[in-house]
Amino acid sequence: MPNHQRQLHLGVNMYNAGIHAAAWRKHDDPFAYLDIDYYRNIARIAERGALDAVFLADIPGLREDPRVRPTLGLEPTVLLTGIASATERIGLVATASTTFNDPYNLARRFSSLDHVSGGRAAWNAVTTYDPVVAPNFGLPELPEHDDRYGRAEEFVDVVRKLWDAWEDSALIGDPAGDLADPDRIHTIDHQGEHFSVRGPLPLPRSPQGQPVVVQAGGSEPGKRVAARTADAVFAAQTTFEEGKQFYAEMKRRARDYGRDPETLKILPGLCTVIAATEAEARDRKAELDELGGQEWAIARLALNLGVDAAELDLDAPVPEHLLRNLDEKRGSRGFARAVANYARRDGLTVRELALLGGGGHRYAIGTPEQIADTIEHWFRHEAADGFNLMPDVLPSGLETFVDHVVPELRKRGIFRTDYSGATLRDHLGLSRPRSQYERAEHALSS
Amino acid sequence: MPNHQRQLHLGVNMYNAGIHAAAWRKHDDPFAYLDIDYYRNIARIAERGALDAVFLADIPGLREDPRVRPTLGLEPTVLLTGIASATERIGLVATASTTFNDPYNLARRFSSLDHVSGGRAAWNAVTTYDPVVAPNFGLPELPEHDDRYGRAEEFVDVVRKLWDAWEDSALIGDPAGDLADPDRIHTIDHQGEHFSVRGPLPLPRSPQGQPVVVQAGGSEPGKRVAARTADAVFAAQTTFEEGKQFYAEMKRRARDYGRDPETLKILPGLCTVIAATEAEARDRKAELDELGGQEWAIARLALNLGVDAAELDLDAPVPEHLLRNLDEKRGSRGFARAVANYARRDGLTVRELALLGGGGHRYAIGTPEQIADTIEHWFRHEAADGFNLMPDVLPSGLETFVDHVVPELRKRGIFRTDYSGATLRDHLGLSRPRSQYERAEHALSS
Repeated sequence: MPNHQRQLHLGVNMYNAGIHAAAWRKHDDPFAYLDIDYYRNIARIAERGALDAVFLADIPGLREDPRVRPTLGLEPTVLLTGIASATERIGLVATASTTFNDPYNLARRFSSLDHVSGGRAAWNAVTTYDPVVAPNFGLPELPEHDDRYGRAEEFVDVVRKLWDAWEDSALIGDPAGDLADPDRIHTIDHQGEHFSVRGPLPLPRSPQGQPVVVQAGGSEPGKRVAARTADAVFAAQTTFEEGKQFYAEMKRRARDYGRDPETLKILPGLCTVIAATEAEARDRKAELDELGGQEWAIARLALNLGVDAAELDLDAPVPEHLLRNLDEKRGSRGFARAVANYARRDGLTVRELALLGGGGHRYAIGTPEQIADTIEHWFRHEAADGFNLMPDVLPSGLETFVDHVVPELRKRGIFRTDYSGATLRDHLGLSRPRSQYERAEHALSS
Repeated sequence: MPNHQRQLHLGVNMYNAGIHAAAWRKHDDPFAYLDIDYYRNIARIAERGALDAVFLADIPGLREDPRVRPTLGLEPTVLLTGIASATERIGLVATASTTFNDPYNLARRFSSLDHVSGGRAAWNAVTTYDPVVAPNFGLPELPEHDDRYGRAEEFVDVVRKLWDAWEDSALIGDPAGDLADPDRIHTIDHQGEHFSVRGPLPLPRSPQGQPVVVQAGGSEPGKRVAARTADAVFAAQTTFEEGKQFYAEMKRRARDYGRDPETLKILPGLCTVIAATEAEARDRKAELDELGGQEWAIARLALNLGVDAAELDLDAPVPEHLLRNLDEKRGSRGFARAVANYARRDGLTVRELALLGGGGHRYAIGTPEQIADTIEHWFRHEAADGFNLMPDVLPSGLETFVDHVVPELRKRGIFRTDYSGATLRDHLGLSRPRSQYERAEHALSS
């Protein structure tokens, strides 16, 4: 294999109306976020920019206050299937919870999406940290953090076994003979602490062999699971120093598991507000903040820190004692740490912090050149392999990115001018894995 | 309301290559059944004939011997979403198991399909009777028949509550005010024997209010659940007398639950083999039987009767003692009874029975006029409100039906010439239900 130049990877988070809580107020149709054509349009814009993927976050519950902002409600694998038919190359990343799903049904759904999209599916495996979800599934509260990750780790292993159970060579298709070779279709016979699954799936291996697996682990068990099993990490670092440190740590951890560190892509979230001048970009952000969502942003900050919003004085910095003991929280430790670091570094008031970094991701506000500067800086200095973009308002924030930031990145020689392959693995520079059952057989006969 | 003439309803079962086990051997591409465009083409043909719906059966497991016939593997809600974008009117019916799913995720997936398709979704709620499934979900064997139906009944109720939790009037969409009205979005707070679910779903009520619910109950608890909660029944009667009896019984049961019996549609399965002459149709069937699938048909017969295939003498009738005590079986009692009745009536050998009625559904073999005769006879004499068609080979068997049987049915004045509405409820003549939470509120204030 030739030594390829390191490539920048870009996804876009289709967070309903946009990442800003007031984004829906800028839409002609406030309920566009329920319309499949709205998402198809966003995906086509992303594809015009040759981005790697569109991404859907997910919480199986009514997360947001319905007065102030939409919750993305359409089930992600259904929504992305609706997008697949309207696009040709763009990757399709759906979030699904390992705490509130079953591995057999989930493996089958993502394999189906990979079949239907011609090899563009990815699964963002999360353990779900929002307490609103548990009572929808018969639980009074979320399982403990370590229990969620124990289940998650085994869950991902089971899913990968199910994806591999049909060897690629199992298909025969002889009209006068056999359709498929049962000797190359394996039960997985998994028996573990959390799951007992016989398998196989009722359908052959999908175009990518295995759909891409993304994780968002920021806690110790999250990082361990990601380093061992994920193809990419949706990271949450709000400062360059944190970014560099997390990047180096994850690559080292991947190496410790015997992996080529280039097969684990580190992709922090990046909230973008872009305009022709920096002043206009700041005005755009201020106008959105004015329009609404401050209460929402404070509630999200409180959720991410695991504190009661009523405890917070909006015009003072977050008290230091609320930034400690983050590893005892039941919620997302990655978001908690990202927010705490941001709060400590800049001495922001609660209100300022909520409107900027309270969601756990860095804000980049400025001109296309300034946005490109940030991306290039993080990319060249190994704080990121790319970004999961979170435009303030969709689709306008993405259109500006594709029309003005992407050309700038290309001019700097760090982003592709077109797709060079057909699958998401191709875009990410990840090879198609051989079935683990095929490897086992070869090992036996060698 | 004017007194509408009773309308015939027709769906088509997209059972991968066709209902005959050898159907894939007639395809240019034996793996067409994995290709979304193959199903899109079938759905477009059905829509050209103004059929009510396309239907996907489902078993979450590798059910068929992979040497001899495909198992439909693509997850049905994903597959039907892929079809929705390629069609405009045809209804989309997906099977999903109440034994191996969770009500919150399932309610959300079908609501999503209804949103994405503009009101064309239906859920065929089954309890799953194939023993191959249980070990994929950590169970050594299927739960007992009555336990499955107890769970199923509560499951359907929970799903309908979740579909109703947002009143239609909850949406406001005022850019300077509120997006939605939380007073019109309800937790369901369901506490039952099998489920505890708070709700609501993260998305508003879908275009049909509630997606259509289909059931296939042939056992006593199955019939009870269907009569109380279903909009349609996929019935399995192989003789006209049985059909009439089942039809009358189900309409009576619906009436006993205080329902208008016309809101419960009885739709038996009908396997079709159609050709220009009856002799050619018989030849077509014989050629398929010759091509393969006899072993498969015998295994399916044995599964449906709940007996060991090795016990059966292929050239003699099924022994009477194997046709008794069907209500003690763990499998599908509806299929068992249908097959047993067929076996008793005609004195067929095991081999003949397997190739004709072993799948539990009636075969209609003949000219377009003969097929239309059967359909008209059952319809006019109240043995059926319509049929779920199971063509021998797809798409050719459906094309012949649409081009030659549908015109015949129109000539006889029993089938629509075009769609008169946009949703599946419109096609089925079912009104859009009001949210049960809206009714509750009205009851309180009246």
